[in-house]
Amino acid sequence: MRITILGGGGFLGRRLARRLAADGVLRTAGGERRIEALTLFDLAAPAPVEAPFPVRTLGGDVADPAALAAAIPPGTDVVFHLAAVVSAAAEADYDLGLHVNLQGTLAVVQACRALPAPPRVVFTSSVASFDGGQEARLPDDARQLPTNSYGAQKAMGELLLHDATRRGLLDAVSIRLPTVIVRPGRPNKAASSFVSAILREPLLGLPAECPVGEAFALWVCSPRAAVEWFLHAAGMDTALLGADRGVNPPGRSATVAKLLEALADVAGPEARALVRHVPDPAVAAIVGEWPAAFTATRARKLGFAEQEPLDEVVRAFVDEDLAATRAERGL
Amino acid sequence: MRITILGGGGFLGRRLARRLAADGVLRTAGGERRIEALTLFDLAAPAPVEAPFPVRTLGGDVADPAALAAAIPPGTDVVFHLAAVVSAAAEADYDLGLHVNLQGTLAVVQACRALPAPPRVVFTSSVASFDGGQEARLPDDARQLPTNSYGAQKAMGELLLHDATRRGLLDAVSIRLPTVIVRPGRPNKAASSFVSAILREPLLGLPAECPVGEAFALWVCSPRAAVEWFLHAAGMDTALLGADRGVNPPGRSATVAKLLEALADVAGPEARALVRHVPDPAVAAIVGEWPAAFTATRARKLGFAEQEPLDEVVRAFVDEDLAATRAERGL
Repeated sequence: MRITILGGGGFLGRRLARRLAADGVLRTAGGERRIEALTLFDLAAPAPVEAPFPVRTLGGDVADPAALAAAIPPGTDVVFHLAAVVSAAAEADYDLGLHVNLQGTLAVVQACRALPAPPRVVFTSSVASFDGGQEARLPDDARQLPTNSYGAQKAMGELLLHDATRRGLLDAVSIRLPTVIVRPGRPNKAASSFVSAILREPLLGLPAECPVGEAFALWVCSPRAAVEWFLHAAGMDTALLGADRGVNPPGRSATVAKLLEALADVAGPEARALVRHVPDPAVAAIVGEWPAAFTATRARKLGFAEQEPLDEVVRAFVDEDLAATRAERGL
Repeated sequence: MRITILGGGGFLGRRLARRLAADGVLRTAGGERRIEALTLFDLAAPAPVEAPFPVRTLGGDVADPAALAAAIPPGTDVVFHLAAVVSAAAEADYDLGLHVNLQGTLAVVQACRALPAPPRVVFTSSVASFDGGQEARLPDDARQLPTNSYGAQKAMGELLLHDATRRGLLDAVSIRLPTVIVRPGRPNKAASSFVSAILREPLLGLPAECPVGEAFALWVCSPRAAVEWFLHAAGMDTALLGADRGVNPPGRSATVAKLLEALADVAGPEARALVRHVPDPAVAAIVGEWPAAFTATRARKLGFAEQEPLDEVVRAFVDEDLAATRAERGL
């Protein structure tokens, strides 16, 4: 089995690559299949990972057909398409968002279409492709009426992959990812960056600002759950999905208060005391439109794993990512 | 008021141009406004129309930024974006459909964005952007899960215009057109071409083949109603639409039997006898997925006009288009 990760240098791309390297196989509906090759593609060539199979790393523009043809060579069985310009960045730079999120996904379709056999494509769509806000608990067939350019471009990408699947050019599963916490490293340009920051920064002994109130609810998931969902989507029998290739995975609806409670459980009240509430209307305007909850009934039936409790999410960050984050930031 | 019609050489584009020429004004929420200039744009420069204002005609590729900049000059108040590759053609040629229907709409956004003030954009989306089939009677917030590439590209175009509207780059109204009957001229590459053909061909004294059974229901509208909707969308107060710029207009759900009954009412049983049932699984597979009815509640509240009865639709074709169709086809 030959696998490509687009966005392979990103936070989730690297975790996924390490997991594939550790497993050496992909569990599919037809049984375990040995991984023969992995390509990691990102804007700059990602650092390689140690693996029991060859790992290629490539740098390039995801919207460039030649770069994509190199990243998705003949024989590719699975493409994880995680390459994206995130929410606040796509809002700030409209052309960049269209280029990467829309034209990039179109280039993925064209590269897959050139293969002798249609590959599985696992696409990271987003909770940001929906509206509804704090009161929403969206059903599986909810309409996508995005309130930000990132979400609109993700919804367009889903339509493109949905139609390409119907045409037999590829075999897509689009996972509408919740806000992923706890992100290591530094704050990024996602409007939801604060959700990780209010946990990560105090764990580093640093202050953090929370732009929304304690009662504000978010649909979140852990990096561990996200990677489990990617692997499940890569190996599942897609006949079970029928024509509808969009999946709302079983994330968790959490208020800021609950997140801070989990922080206090793991790191004590002094960690929690490092979080100050500093309203930010620009951030609140974006994340305030995102639905706070989903039923996620279909995904559960399809075998997408449940999300672990919030304190375990925080503890996993401490165990797996805190030291590296500290080192990366020179703390 | 300066107006551009993209797809100005097509069936609906030409009817719309003639109507604007006859009216000389556009009714808007703020009162009547005199039309100062009209640009008709199509792949080949459309024939001019007689009008009390200057009419420019331009030929070019709708996905070409330079061509669009010429077609949508500074000062443009309203753009009717009717340029499209229709359903069966977009299904047969995937790249052509993406080029015109997706990249073309992106070029419209970029051309509008370059204007000093955001123009009104009236976009023809389609019933083909929905699924549901014969049993469906879709509510206004129905999800678009297209079953053909044309519909997928139209739904993507809607998302693009929805987001561009939110960003203040333009001010869009997307009308999901029913199957428009009776189209003059010759059969075209729309999967729904037969719906016009089973009325038009017998009125010309010619035989016609119907690929679906008499009980098969379609969501239809007349060219007259479509033009009324375009004009209403061009002049309405879009604040009433809020963020949701997609409109399911009040078409009519009609079975093949009802259409043939209207034909017999207007032209006698001998006209109806010219229609033979010849099942075509390829056509049935496409149109069989389209919803047969919509509630269209929101559009009615927003003042979109009701559709006239079917016999009036057939009679209007006889009065307005039959002689020209006869001449065009040398009959």
